[in-house]
Amino acid sequence: MSPRPDLGPKPRLGYTASLIERAAEQRADAAAIAALESDPRARAYAIGGELVALKKTAAGLDPQFTLPEARALGPTAETVFLGLLDGAARFAIALERSTAEALKAREDFVVTDLRSIAIQGLVEVDHLPPIAEGKALLHWHARHRFCSNCGAASNLVEAGWRRDCPACHGQHFPRTDPVVIMLPIAGERCVLGRSYRFQGSMWSCLAGFIEPGEAFEDAVRRETHEEVGITCGRVSYFRSQPWPFPTSLMIGCHAEALSREIVIDRGELEDARWFDREEVALMLLRQHPQGLATPPSVAIAYHIIRAWVEQEIEFR
Amino acid sequence: MSPRPDLGPKPRLGYTASLIERAAEQRADAAAIAALESDPRARAYAIGGELVALKKTAAGLDPQFTLPEARALGPTAETVFLGLLDGAARFAIALERSTAEALKAREDFVVTDLRSIAIQGLVEVDHLPPIAEGKALLHWHARHRFCSNCGAASNLVEAGWRRDCPACHGQHFPRTDPVVIMLPIAGERCVLGRSYRFQGSMWSCLAGFIEPGEAFEDAVRRETHEEVGITCGRVSYFRSQPWPFPTSLMIGCHAEALSREIVIDRGELEDARWFDREEVALMLLRQHPQGLATPPSVAIAYHIIRAWVEQEIEFR
Repeated sequence: MSPRPDLGPKPRLGYTASLIERAAEQRADAAAIAALESDPRARAYAIGGELVALKKTAAGLDPQFTLPEARALGPTAETVFLGLLDGAARFAIALERSTAEALKAREDFVVTDLRSIAIQGLVEVDHLPPIAEGKALLHWHARHRFCSNCGAASNLVEAGWRRDCPACHGQHFPRTDPVVIMLPIAGERCVLGRSYRFQGSMWSCLAGFIEPGEAFEDAVRRETHEEVGITCGRVSYFRSQPWPFPTSLMIGCHAEALSREIVIDRGELEDARWFDREEVALMLLRQHPQGLATPPSVAIAYHIIRAWVEQEIEFR
Repeated sequence: MSPRPDLGPKPRLGYTASLIERAAEQRADAAAIAALESDPRARAYAIGGELVALKKTAAGLDPQFTLPEARALGPTAETVFLGLLDGAARFAIALERSTAEALKAREDFVVTDLRSIAIQGLVEVDHLPPIAEGKALLHWHARHRFCSNCGAASNLVEAGWRRDCPACHGQHFPRTDPVVIMLPIAGERCVLGRSYRFQGSMWSCLAGFIEPGEAFEDAVRRETHEEVGITCGRVSYFRSQPWPFPTSLMIGCHAEALSREIVIDRGELEDARWFDREEVALMLLRQHPQGLATPPSVAIAYHIIRAWVEQEIEFR
């Protein structure tokens, strides 16, 4: 086995380790939510689709607004309750597209997408989990304003954690889409792929949505076979990560490759090939001679790949 | 530590290890699907909500119908393509409620719910995964005949794997709801709870839906604290299981309990308490002196609990 490379301290996985206490028991209590909203210590994240509004301040960019400040930005849609921090509420407020676009022109704001905010470190890292929570929840509302059971317009209830249909009385809950993301490995080699939408020379893990009726070990094997033609045996779970693009939950795994020949599904992937551990270490370190690189450490793919390079994976 | 009890051979986890190859590349090919439908070797499961129709045969109960047989049962709704078995297609066909109810009166059928079929072993165990796949997919269609984005009636496409909206052109994919199911443990003791809906003297793991913005380790800690007031530290993933009641994905975990006092959320649980390993072994063996029992082995809870009793859990 190759020597264990020194990749430096382990960075934090993006969007995890929230400091927010969700206080779910408050959601159905309209009076409690109203009191939290009117508390001057309440703060809101202002999110318009993929865009997040950041205030320029002397201390840097601040994603938090008082509720009156957020609602003065322009037309808004849903307000959702994210939870409590030191006893004060955190909300997310949906900006209408026109509001978010208009803010882009103002010099006292930066309005950009969450991926850029996370990768470029534009805000304190502890803001990323509540922004992810709010973005996913608001995206669900934006796409679910009508009842899927009967077509009637539905209503936001429980501070944003449910929608009720006044016609058929259906109750609808926020949706989270589980996705398997995996690294097929065989001894000193692993398979990485390139999606058509990847920029530059990035290579990453394979991934796909879990389907109805699948355990995720089965989904790992099916997706790996579909995308690169590799048959996998044992699957080892690694970590999970909320991924609000728009409403996914990434389930990171390593998979034992039982076959070696790669057959690429060109409908899904631009390319895929075997990499050895030393080459991947250089990609993690951003020292690859041809400039190939893994995803950044905000993404679980970086951590899945790194755990294998650091020989921390064991199939059981 | 107590001696490792002999619990006998490990039973199979229900609804997993499907023999069906999903053949997802065929779904968009209407001609291929039509050819598979008209192949006399094609078979369908006939499912009406919670109910599954089983034919009485000399060899036992058979959940498989030819497509003409299934459609002759009475009014049906969606047909969805589950995949291939030995080159022949397996479908699931939605029975209208009236059809399923009418079949109950016939002597040549047994019509009952999937839980009973699984627990009582009414069909060959290899039928359970495709029935789970079909049931979850058909339930999604039944509750999503209208576009959640604009309220228009949507259309089934891709052999049942997508619904398209003719008005706003939204595309909708089957929904799977990830649920954490966990056993909080502390040395020789674990916490089990009783839901109000449990029958008899059953005690089981705690469980709850993963929310937007949560990794599942975070969801385990939040739900355990909400339901029984226990603070948890490390979380160890065990296995996952599709759970088509109606569209869940169970994510089984063990959690390291850092506190001991139980405070029950009576809105969620009828009861919860600490159990020691020896008492739980008797519950798994159905030999408990007061008749207390774990869930049956079709459910992941049995396997989560058993793995702890058999001392196979290690936090890392």
